[in-house]
Amino acid sequence: MSQHSSGGPAALPAEFGFIGRIFRPLAGEGALDLRDDAAVVTPPPGRQMVMAVDAMVEGVHFLSDDPPDTIGRKLLRCNLSDLAAMDATPLGYLLTVARPPGYAEAWFADFAAGLHADQQTYNLGLLGGDTTSTTGPLVLSLTIVGHVASGCALQRCTARAGDGLWVSGTIGDGALGLLALRGQVADPNHVLAQRYRLPIPRLGLELHGIATAAMDVSDGLVQDAGHLARESGLDVDIDVDRIPLSDAARAAGPQWRETCLTGGDDYELLLAVPPDREEALERQGRRHGVPMTRIGRFTDAASTVGVVRLHDAQGGTVRVARPGWSHL
Amino acid sequence: MSQHSSGGPAALPAEFGFIGRIFRPLAGEGALDLRDDAAVVTPPPGRQMVMAVDAMVEGVHFLSDDPPDTIGRKLLRCNLSDLAAMDATPLGYLLTVARPPGYAEAWFADFAAGLHADQQTYNLGLLGGDTTSTTGPLVLSLTIVGHVASGCALQRCTARAGDGLWVSGTIGDGALGLLALRGQVADPNHVLAQRYRLPIPRLGLELHGIATAAMDVSDGLVQDAGHLARESGLDVDIDVDRIPLSDAARAAGPQWRETCLTGGDDYELLLAVPPDREEALERQGRRHGVPMTRIGRFTDAASTVGVVRLHDAQGGTVRVARPGWSHL
Repeated sequence: MSQHSSGGPAALPAEFGFIGRIFRPLAGEGALDLRDDAAVVTPPPGRQMVMAVDAMVEGVHFLSDDPPDTIGRKLLRCNLSDLAAMDATPLGYLLTVARPPGYAEAWFADFAAGLHADQQTYNLGLLGGDTTSTTGPLVLSLTIVGHVASGCALQRCTARAGDGLWVSGTIGDGALGLLALRGQVADPNHVLAQRYRLPIPRLGLELHGIATAAMDVSDGLVQDAGHLARESGLDVDIDVDRIPLSDAARAAGPQWRETCLTGGDDYELLLAVPPDREEALERQGRRHGVPMTRIGRFTDAASTVGVVRLHDAQGGTVRVARPGWSHL
Repeated sequence: MSQHSSGGPAALPAEFGFIGRIFRPLAGEGALDLRDDAAVVTPPPGRQMVMAVDAMVEGVHFLSDDPPDTIGRKLLRCNLSDLAAMDATPLGYLLTVARPPGYAEAWFADFAAGLHADQQTYNLGLLGGDTTSTTGPLVLSLTIVGHVASGCALQRCTARAGDGLWVSGTIGDGALGLLALRGQVADPNHVLAQRYRLPIPRLGLELHGIATAAMDVSDGLVQDAGHLARESGLDVDIDVDRIPLSDAARAAGPQWRETCLTGGDDYELLLAVPPDREEALERQGRRHGVPMTRIGRFTDAASTVGVVRLHDAQGGTVRVARPGWSHL
């Protein structure tokens, strides 16, 4: 901090320059140029606000030598996937950065460039933030803000017995991508690594009136299907042979099937869809270029709710060692 | 993680129990019981949403042996102070916790009890959150959500030359409180330590139509007054003998005056108020039991904007070594 005295030019703390150089170019509508105490935003007429938050920690969710431009984008996209699961449209985000001494400004410039690219792709802007120092690993926290037609947010607790369990896109690429980056899985075209680093949030599918319930698959398909069933007071049957795999995941070999089912990092949508809305769902999928696959069906709960019964195409029982990820 | 197999009860990851025990009791309206992908909130008719975010890091903003019930409340109150500076009303908040191995669940139970108490005081609820593990210090990030009459949010950039610079409450107690906790300042009644640990956000003053610009004082009065002036394209004169000090701050002795002016952690409001609105401001202050003091006046900028000229009651120049805190 430079000397400050009466009558001299107003010295500014170091973080003002850092925020101005790195984050101000990301400021969106309502952010007041990141110069005020708070952002002011208004949902469009007839829309409610939708908000979620996720944190990522160096060494837990990413490595310090990961490409910095993908780290912020992944955090943003994971949050956007939560909006997608509510059938919501993005509006903006708030970001906190706990910055360790070892991260130079150039790292954050790349980090922000990644965010800037995704802001264009997904049509949103930075609404606010806070940068602080830490002696520990880099910690990022991102609050996503969107809007949804009033009363139309898709929830997890509203699936009904008889609804099909549907999933968007392909499952397992993210989990295999992490193994590919560790050299454990072949990934000649880097398709899997790319899916791990840059998931694709399934925004804009307009699923209100089609799906009865939804969530995004982040912690493993089997575990997350159990959440959807349990929150709705149901059980669910899954035919594991119907779970859609990408060509790259198939090429990795059948020994990785369980990883695909339980590995997480998919950021696809898991949907409950009544039989008479299946055509409408497939139509929406085709319109947006997103494959939609029915992989199972919700049933009345036998005793404990949230039981996931896995079987193969021949009806044989399939077992997995664990259904998904725990964060603690 | 317990063994999970087809047909067995659905095992839940460890963080589900933790979140359920510690954070679900804090869930507010629109939080969907913290069981869904995102929260859904609606501003009251004629109101816009106001949002801000702040992070706190163990060892930087608090110590691991600070009382856990005050740590979450301080973070919440710092954020509420940002809402107060926009003349906004609280609605809810989202919270991320990067949890080191050494923090037991009992610590978080106390942490949450503090938040619960403040939720009653300030009428808001938890809207969402994320808990993750970290190898480093505890990092907390809190996004505050409120609402304000449409078009009426107080900003920093709208002060006018001739407006008085006003401040709510008393200045310096928080900075002296930190020194008191370190044994450097006498604090026989623990008034200063209490102000440091639990600042009082100046919510509900209804300053639209009275103040032309506002911000909260968090990083030192002199520095923050400079921000308000600079954002408005002005300079500002401050009579340091008018800066309101508490009895406890006066008792600490005159050698701490500069600490009061520049130490930060005040969470009072800094307001630009035209001469013909001074009576209205004082009336609002009396109604809410918050002293309001004019400590200076905004002037046209001489050359560089944002210059803070400090003088005493006799007109003598006052110098300070640095105007406030930097976070990097």
